[in-house]
Amino acid sequence: MLAFRKVVEKMEGYVPGEQPQEKGFIKLNTNENPYPPPREVLKALQEKVTPERLALYPPPLSDQLRFKLSEVYGVPPDQIIVGNGSDELLNIIFRAFLGYRSRVAYLYPTYTLYRTLATIQEADYLEIPFQGEDFQQLPSRFLAEEADLKVVCNPNSPTGTFIPMEEIEKLLQSSRCPVVLDEAYVDFAEESALPLLPKYPHLIIVRTLSKSFSLAGLRIGFLFAHSEVVKGLLKLKDSYNVNILSQIAGVAALEGLNQVKENISKIKRTREWFSQALKSLGFQVLPSQANFVFVRSRSYESLEKVYQELKSRKILVRFFPEWKEWLRITIGKDQEMQILLENLKEILGKEWNQGA
Amino acid sequence: MLAFRKVVEKMEGYVPGEQPQEKGFIKLNTNENPYPPPREVLKALQEKVTPERLALYPPPLSDQLRFKLSEVYGVPPDQIIVGNGSDELLNIIFRAFLGYRSRVAYLYPTYTLYRTLATIQEADYLEIPFQGEDFQQLPSRFLAEEADLKVVCNPNSPTGTFIPMEEIEKLLQSSRCPVVLDEAYVDFAEESALPLLPKYPHLIIVRTLSKSFSLAGLRIGFLFAHSEVVKGLLKLKDSYNVNILSQIAGVAALEGLNQVKENISKIKRTREWFSQALKSLGFQVLPSQANFVFVRSRSYESLEKVYQELKSRKILVRFFPEWKEWLRITIGKDQEMQILLENLKEILGKEWNQGA
Repeated sequence: MLAFRKVVEKMEGYVPGEQPQEKGFIKLNTNENPYPPPREVLKALQEKVTPERLALYPPPLSDQLRFKLSEVYGVPPDQIIVGNGSDELLNIIFRAFLGYRSRVAYLYPTYTLYRTLATIQEADYLEIPFQGEDFQQLPSRFLAEEADLKVVCNPNSPTGTFIPMEEIEKLLQSSRCPVVLDEAYVDFAEESALPLLPKYPHLIIVRTLSKSFSLAGLRIGFLFAHSEVVKGLLKLKDSYNVNILSQIAGVAALEGLNQVKENISKIKRTREWFSQALKSLGFQVLPSQANFVFVRSRSYESLEKVYQELKSRKILVRFFPEWKEWLRITIGKDQEMQILLENLKEILGKEWNQGA
Repeated sequence: MLAFRKVVEKMEGYVPGEQPQEKGFIKLNTNENPYPPPREVLKALQEKVTPERLALYPPPLSDQLRFKLSEVYGVPPDQIIVGNGSDELLNIIFRAFLGYRSRVAYLYPTYTLYRTLATIQEADYLEIPFQGEDFQQLPSRFLAEEADLKVVCNPNSPTGTFIPMEEIEKLLQSSRCPVVLDEAYVDFAEESALPLLPKYPHLIIVRTLSKSFSLAGLRIGFLFAHSEVVKGLLKLKDSYNVNILSQIAGVAALEGLNQVKENISKIKRTREWFSQALKSLGFQVLPSQANFVFVRSRSYESLEKVYQELKSRKILVRFFPEWKEWLRITIGKDQEMQILLENLKEILGKEWNQGA
């Protein structure tokens, strides 16, 4: 066997949610948007893709898309990086600030990719548990801790919970290291940290078109940071990291912002009634500001069997072995959530899992 | 300023070739293919892209594309990784095998990205000069040297020269570390190292659809290696690294292999007459098995002014500040090369650079 770095040899890779190739699943496991992307996207792909554009390297800094993002979000283009999904941007950030024995701090539970990325850098990771049952406060230890990088996923995955901006600002004021706000789900929340950016040069905000813009297939992430930070991070970026089709589609998607907003409203409405319905089935449902809910039932030590039973009925939700008593359920269309509820009722009614 | 890792603070990023947004350039600077990709590609993009596919995450391991690659190249699917361009795969390989103070060896001159990637890993890089004027031999020191990773770009960029397979096999026999053959340009050469793969478990072959398949805009790279190596490397791969459109287009491109072969033949024919024509202008032209030639004129210590003058006439070739006496010229269409020659004749005829 070849000599991988020891840390690579020992580690397990990050395991993404299932992406079944088989048709017919109600897919509520990886927080995709059940509504189509703005009509402008397919139109642009049909009209603007030429053999020549396929044959040439794409603009290294995704210029047109960056300029469009600048226009929509009011952030200067030199404060924006476009990535091959926000995962690539997180990857770049971790590699830029973390090396052997440096330290990243983040809350727990959260997106487990942070642990994987820290491990690859041979950095220590400090996982600080949320305080309280509602996951809406930053633990004072997280504010005070010295680290080389702090990361907050907000709204948080897998919990769906949201840290209010006063808390985020406390974090920025008490931290000298770069603070990453992973706002993958922020379009489903009440507010974003973006207005804080001008005031805090160590704030890095990471976003994506995968969720709210229904473009998970295209891998378009972006980040906002101060221009000096952007300059440093760009040293680590692959030259041509975003393919030309995604650059074209990204611009078109931003032109269809109104459709996106409508989809977000629908998802939020579904989230509200579905959360209530789950509660009336006896589930604890964390207050969500994302396009998913994180739920548990106090009658079950593990929901793995419920997950398996749903899967056998062609309904996929997310079960994390690390948080066995919980399920993360993406908000789909109303009808999909109704079918899920009916199936859950049947499964729970059978009490086949009484022994658990 | 934020605390980037020291090595990031100090380093300069890799500088890719210019990608002018302005129209009207004869673009011979980044080794793109002047012919269109197979017709199947645009057809597949028109027919197979649906709103649903855009909204869902793509298959993490690019399954359909991997299976198609397996069929075309006769390598089992578990020995293939598809990447967001071959740059991403090189990035993953360097991160998998190199850490602080480990050592990568490669020849010089070559693709300068290797130096950038090694630097980011805080690894030492040993740049071993080619022996002889034709760049076709592996220096004995390169064979003997102990390292954690060896890389050979073959055909090599920027020289276009090719190391024959007997030499490559010597390298594989004398090295215990992983040996990467970066075969980005191999479709323009006489042979590939692929037949050596079954025999050498430490061989990793990196390829791309950017050059021979005219798909630089889509960022599709792939590698062949033994399945245990693939398993290790996958731990470092971003979950959804290849967007769905590139996966669809990649399959279609491989179905149009005959058109690709025709384009390759045309480019090789142009390369031959163009090389002769340059020689008759007094240039030294290295023997090329790639889709570009590396040339110098013994009358000039630097070709920077020639490059600048060509650029002002809207012809882009590649000038590397690191190799001032050389230019790298991509093989375009016959007519483009003729225009380039006429302009070169004019520029050289003027002897405006006599003082050089």
